Amino acid sequence: MAQYSFLNDYSEGAHPNILKALVDHNSTQQMGYGTDEFSTDAKALIKKHIGQSDSEICFVSGGTQANLIIISSALRPHEAVISADTGHIVFHEAGAIEATGHKVITIQNPMGKLNIEEIKHTLCVYDFGPHVVKPKMLYISNATEIGTVYTKQELKALYSLAQKQGLYLFLDGARLGTAITSSHSDVTLEDIAKYTDIFTIGGTKNGAFLGEAIVITHPILKTDFSFHLKQKGAMLAKGRLLGLQFKTLFTDNLYFDLAKHANAMANKMANAITACGYSYFSNPVSNLIFPILPNTLITALEKEFIFYRWKKHDEHHSILRLVTSWTTDENQVDRFIDILNSYKE
Amino acid sequence: MAQYSFLNDYSEGAHPNILKALVDHNSTQQMGYGTDEFSTDAKALIKKHIGQSDSEICFVSGGTQANLIIISSALRPHEAVISADTGHIVFHEAGAIEATGHKVITIQNPMGKLNIEEIKHTLCVYDFGPHVVKPKMLYISNATEIGTVYTKQELKALYSLAQKQGLYLFLDGARLGTAITSSHSDVTLEDIAKYTDIFTIGGTKNGAFLGEAIVITHPILKTDFSFHLKQKGAMLAKGRLLGLQFKTLFTDNLYFDLAKHANAMANKMANAITACGYSYFSNPVSNLIFPILPNTLITALEKEFIFYRWKKHDEHHSILRLVTSWTTDENQVDRFIDILNSYKE
Amino acid sequence: MAQYSFLNDYSEGAHPNILKALVDHNSTQQMGYGTDEFSTDAKALIKKHIGQSDSEICFVSGGTQANLIIISSALRPHEAVISADTGHIVFHEAGAIEATGHKVITIQNPMGKLNIEEIKHTLCVYDFGPHVVKPKMLYISNATEIGTVYTKQELKALYSLAQKQGLYLFLDGARLGTAITSSHSDVTLEDIAKYTDIFTIGGTKNGAFLGEAIVITHPILKTDFSFHLKQKGAMLAKGRLLGLQFKTLFTDNLYFDLAKHANAMANKMANAITACGYSYFSNPVSNLIFPILPNTLITALEKEFIFYRWKKHDEHHSILRLVTSWTTDENQVDRFIDILNSYKE
Amino acid sequence: MAQYSFLNDYSEGAHPNILKALVDHNSTQQMGYGTDEFSTDAKALIKKHIGQSDSEICFVSGGTQANLIIISSALRPHEAVISADTGHIVFHEAGAIEATGHKVITIQNPMGKLNIEEIKHTLCVYDFGPHVVKPKMLYISNATEIGTVYTKQELKALYSLAQKQGLYLFLDGARLGTAITSSHSDVTLEDIAKYTDIFTIGGTKNGAFLGEAIVITHPILKTDFSFHLKQKGAMLAKGRLLGLQFKTLFTDNLYFDLAKHANAMANKMANAITACGYSYFSNPVSNLIFPILPNTLITALEKEFIFYRWKKHDEHHSILRLVTSWTTDENQVDRFIDILNSYKE
Repeated sequence: MAQYSFLNDYSEGAHPNILKALVDHNSTQQMGYGTDEFSTDAKALIKKHIGQSDSEICFVSGGTQANLIIISSALRPHEAVISADTGHIVFHEAGAIEATGHKVITIQNPMGKLNIEEIKHTLCVYDFGPHVVKPKMLYISNATEIGTVYTKQELKALYSLAQKQGLYLFLDGARLGTAITSSHSDVTLEDIAKYTDIFTIGGTKNGAFLGEAIVITHPILKTDFSFHLKQKGAMLAKGRLLGLQFKTLFTDNLYFDLAKHANAMANKMANAITACGYSYFSNPVSNLIFPILPNTLITALEKEFIFYRWKKHDEHHSILRLVTSWTTDENQVDRFIDILNSYKE
Repeated sequence: MAQYSFLNDYSEGAHPNILKALVDHNSTQQMGYGTDEFSTDAKALIKKHIGQSDSEICFVSGGTQANLIIISSALRPHEAVISADTGHIVFHEAGAIEATGHKVITIQNPMGKLNIEEIKHTLCVYDFGPHVVKPKMLYISNATEIGTVYTKQELKALYSLAQKQGLYLFLDGARLGTAITSSHSDVTLEDIAKYTDIFTIGGTKNGAFLGEAIVITHPILKTDFSFHLKQKGAMLAKGRLLGLQFKTLFTDNLYFDLAKHANAMANKMANAITACGYSYFSNPVSNLIFPILPNTLITALEKEFIFYRWKKHDEHHSILRLVTSWTTDENQVDRFIDILNSYKE
Repeated sequence: MAQYSFLNDYSEGAHPNILKALVDHNSTQQMGYGTDEFSTDAKALIKKHIGQSDSEICFVSGGTQANLIIISSALRPHEAVISADTGHIVFHEAGAIEATGHKVITIQNPMGKLNIEEIKHTLCVYDFGPHVVKPKMLYISNATEIGTVYTKQELKALYSLAQKQGLYLFLDGARLGTAITSSHSDVTLEDIAKYTDIFTIGGTKNGAFLGEAIVITHPILKTDFSFHLKQKGAMLAKGRLLGLQFKTLFTDNLYFDLAKHANAMANKMANAITACGYSYFSNPVSNLIFPILPNTLITALEKEFIFYRWKKHDEHHSILRLVTSWTTDENQVDRFIDILNSYKE
Repeated sequence: MAQYSFLNDYSEGAHPNILKALVDHNSTQQMGYGTDEFSTDAKALIKKHIGQSDSEICFVSGGTQANLIIISSALRPHEAVISADTGHIVFHEAGAIEATGHKVITIQNPMGKLNIEEIKHTLCVYDFGPHVVKPKMLYISNATEIGTVYTKQELKALYSLAQKQGLYLFLDGARLGTAITSSHSDVTLEDIAKYTDIFTIGGTKNGAFLGEAIVITHPILKTDFSFHLKQKGAMLAKGRLLGLQFKTLFTDNLYFDLAKHANAMANKMANAITACGYSYFSNPVSNLIFPILPNTLITALEKEFIFYRWKKHDEHHSILRLVTSWTTDENQVDRFIDILNSYKE
């Protein structure tokens, strides 16, 4: 790619520590299907971080895979999952959830989040069984698809409602690193484990070649979970590849350090954009930011950079999606800011 | 693992060339979801090998995933797949095929293969629609689950029958390398592409960390195939990881050289076992061999090695499953043979 | 039920002609699974009515069953169906379509219909494969869930768009009788067959004990359709029960006469309601009407009648759903009108 | 049909009492979806018969529908059902169970039954999770597909094993009437309810137009069962049709009297066949009998009667399937016996 990419947070390979670990342990013989020593070590490290030693942890290749296994293993055929209409499972997974037999009930929300009142209203609408599906799970993402993050209070309120209503709370953490380390977040990994029933920790978008950790704290959801991994083709013969990456990411806080870098780079861009007087589609608080820029400026930027023109804003402005990552080059960020600052309408 | 393992062909990491390629290209930015340059290069290399430039190729993480996507994308809801009763999809995939809605019709065969007469009989039995499922696909593995391989004539006959009967022929090549390079095989990769409608090339068991190439030659099966990858969670954000591995494996015939090593090691063990007068559950022609050994000898071997006691043979003998790989240590093979030769009943 | 019911159009048994036919032919031995003489006769009668002798026709027990079989037999796993957000498959079938693996894409429309511009916009939004599902079918109801009907021009336009875009057009005719015989409709049964790919003719809500005819005119959709009936449990051992009912309904235009009665009764109510100065949620043109009445009047009516309070309109008014049927008692309609006319706010 | 049919037990309409009830109650308005008075009455009558007032009962249209709803509502995605290889769900339902996502594990048994030792062996083979499906339900038919019946001791033993192993025991009673009233059976309807977790009572093959009662005694299986009915298209708008039929069948023991007639007719045929010195494929104890007759005799019988040539026995003999019903004409049975007795090889 001739231009530098702010398209996403999965444009590069893996963190050097991961490469080193793969090289160092390459010839050791290990048991298959996730029963290797590296996976065991990685699980122990994560359990220590979340402070729940009896949680169940496993590793899968990607986010859509994690989402479809979690949801289909948790729900009976007549049960449905509730998501914000911007949720990844709604539009961007080619019908993966429906393919396992379940309806995704959507709630429109400008922040990409679920909130208590809207959920309560939805539960009322669906209080019409057996003629309609039965809502049984809440799906939230942190960070969300539009870069926003949940506060501790919001998360606690959702979990409390879920418990009262007999719903599971599932948090999709494909970008959990940048959510937790956002300066707008007061949530820790321990909180995530405490106030959800099941969640994922994204590796692919935070330094790994591939891999999402699935962390299960609800006893019912733990039961026979590994069968579902196997049935959906997610149990890798060389589970060591996932284990070793997560072991590396959770050694010496690497996972959090990488996320902080991604946030810092986005923040630097956001500050410059704000200084120029531009506004945002959603509050820029993590490594995905959605500035509203003049089309002529965008055209100038596109000569040097790749990114998504997310949506038309008005005749002369568009909303961009800019994504930074654990390995974003600060020089490129500076170049981006230079073009921005030198732009005259 | 204190003992050396002949449990399987996925106990170690990846071939050093793969590690080197991952390190060398780590920081290059690439497009996501399999549209990267490495995947493009890998596809071109494989197309050259199979001699079909208009085939459709993609890469997925594992064999069960490949099998369930291939079968579910090809079949309408009332259609079924026919497999030998030892086929991997029958027992070892936790119901992955049925979970996509399809019956697996099994045919008992002592060689782990499908043959013409048995298929014809099965088609007669199922000529009872709409009360029964409609057979629409043949599933074969090469090498099979019990280490046997198809000859060119067998493969051609199956393909010819499939075409006459309107069936798709799908070849699961999780161990395609050792099948093709077996001294008992007269089949080339080009033949495989010519006499099947869709097949896989296994990377996980032949030098890669993970990865199966899916090669589609039948026009109908190509249509919209990528949607199915996405829907089943198989489209990796960093498809580069799969692309780079297959590019490496199909550079300078590495894929075949690795398979030859696996076969050579198994062959060395088999010759020694035969020389001692022992027989086999199935003909030892690839990297999986199934010798029938005295239990007391097995106990002696188990002090130094790990492997599966596959089945009880009689009061005093068991069938072992011994598996060698692309990286099996010849010294360990020699040690195994030493114990064998020094054994006195 | 002490009060007279305007709840729905399935509160009573079957038309006397049907009862007579069941009695008359009770002891005749017939072949099973829809291959009986009565089903054959019924199919011939319907084919004559629709003017397409090569259509494929079969009979099933109910509407949800018909919908789920039609949609799941037509779509490949990654394909989706587009429906108005009030469509029966969206909310009132307990996730039946999703349970077969398919997403229902909804379009908001105040008339309960699909229109060309909105479909085109939706197709643009979903032009993002393979990351999203692929729209492949349009689902419409005639009459709709809110009692509106399609004109011939609307239907032709939808069919033309469907053909251009490679979409199937499926018309759910659970209330096809009252739609076609509505004074606001210029559509014949022949038109329905001409301008759709597959449609149903509802018996349950128009004089039968149970039964929907599925009429397939698109060649691809005909293929192996009976397998899907069987697999979903819709192929009745005594298919004669469905055949005999449809034979009766399509003898001497009974089907249309019954629908006309339902419409006439609703029309009588609607005229009275309009005369009193009340308005409607949707235009009252078939046997489902949705008047907006004062809550105090509704309370008075509820002493004598049962019906749904469909939605709150404002502080003092609600929207009712009033349904008449093939056997609605005109005396009861008159009583209803009396109460209405004697009401003083 | 010119010849008299012994093809099956669903060649005729319904018992006159049912016809009368349908006529008598035709114009009464009733609530929809199985909440009508007739269904309520029918459930009460059945509960009295089985002696379990807290069981959950509902009515569906047919046997395949009942089977697929029961099995799919009970099992999680990774769980499987065990059946004799002659079980109806194995071959005769067009993959209905697999279409809901579940593997059917088969056990070969010459009597068409499941027995304790074979189940235990199967559980051992499948003690290999998470790589294989998890057996969770036993499926048996009474009477079986080959006309045999379970004794009370056999049933108790199965139920005891099921409870010990955490399996559900599901009894398919499509021909429960003839099973219970067989002279070889010591099982009552009360026993059936006591020693299973869920079972069906077949109406279609014992005097009704259509209908199977599903009786659920296991608390977990009761939960939300009606959602599954709705989702699979089994909840009839006019549930009254099913309710009224079962109310009639369980008034004055009609259900049992009809089954006794079917058995008596089969028994009369069987006695004559035995007297002629012919043998059977399976013991003739219910209304399905499988005599082994000379092909020349069969040809003679086929001039007057229709029945299935079930299987070739040897060069000169075939196995017939002869089925009698609640309304089999004894004169026709006598004619059949006359031909039999007058036959000379």
